[in-house]
Amino acid sequence: MADSLDALLSVIHSRKSVRNFEDGNKVIPKETLDTIVKAAFAAPSAVNWQPWHFIVINERALLDNLGSLPYAKMLYKSSAAIIVCGDTQVSELYWIVDCAAATQNILLSVEALGLGAVWTAVYPHDERISFVKKLLHLPDNIIPLNVIPVGYPSGTNKPKDKYKPQKVHMNGW
Amino acid sequence: MADSLDALLSVIHSRKSVRNFEDGNKVIPKETLDTIVKAAFAAPSAVNWQPWHFIVINERALLDNLGSLPYAKMLYKSSAAIIVCGDTQVSELYWIVDCAAATQNILLSVEALGLGAVWTAVYPHDERISFVKKLLHLPDNIIPLNVIPVGYPSGTNKPKDKYKPQKVHMNGW
Repeated sequence: MADSLDALLSVIHSRKSVRNFEDGNKVIPKETLDTIVKAAFAAPSAVNWQPWHFIVINERALLDNLGSLPYAKMLYKSSAAIIVCGDTQVSELYWIVDCAAATQNILLSVEALGLGAVWTAVYPHDERISFVKKLLHLPDNIIPLNVIPVGYPSGTNKPKDKYKPQKVHMNGW
Repeated sequence: MADSLDALLSVIHSRKSVRNFEDGNKVIPKETLDTIVKAAFAAPSAVNWQPWHFIVINERALLDNLGSLPYAKMLYKSSAAIIVCGDTQVSELYWIVDCAAATQNILLSVEALGLGAVWTAVYPHDERISFVKKLLHLPDNIIPLNVIPVGYPSGTNKPKDKYKPQKVHMNGW
């Protein structure tokens, strides 16, 4: 118990947004990508509706294409990407939070694997949503929440200490 | 690396929604609640705006009061609760996903500590938001995303295997 707690907290506190990758031609094994995506499926979802789909990208041309999105040029050097999508027909009210929880499982798994990733927002920006939907042939009811480049970190990105005790309120504001 | 990966994945896949608690009068030490909340602060946030506040509840009367929320009667038997709130003035566009990622860190930490928790939705339900804001004296710009009862699990709740390979799409739909 203590060991798994220490390990979990270590990953949680070591996780950082990695925007600098070594070499986008270095392949991430398919089994590694499977491990990451399986962790995403273990997230909670409202009413257990599991309103998510995961698009895994490892084709260079598609990664480069996605790199033209705003704030997403790290895709030019990432080895892969995962796009977390919500099915609005399955859970109109909660797909966003459920997909965000699944995203956090992805980011933690990537960190523990010694890889790097960063959440780049697609939703709620209409033009980004349209671009991704068209590129990846997504059905109307499937909305991309984000694009997560995954790659081999150059080691230049470090975790931040963001703890602010004044944002913790005991038994009320 | 391998050990911390195994430990992380074990926690991720063991995490379950715990709705059945042993004894709501059994105290969770303040340091344990601090550990959980510190993990929440380590979540990513858009533009690093960190638009979150955490209300920690360990007063029996407040827990019982919150138990009157819809689908939240487990608060009558939980030892504590954490309410994850977003500051809409800090991040109108992204507070929901940032607070959801922080929530996932909370749920994983609770699991690794041998405690139990469950995400009960407040946002986007206006009547639940008003109730929590009034009870806890939240400022206008602070919106509660959820209430997370935390307690000593009775052991009756088990994790689900939710992996569905047909929801993983390689290089497009």
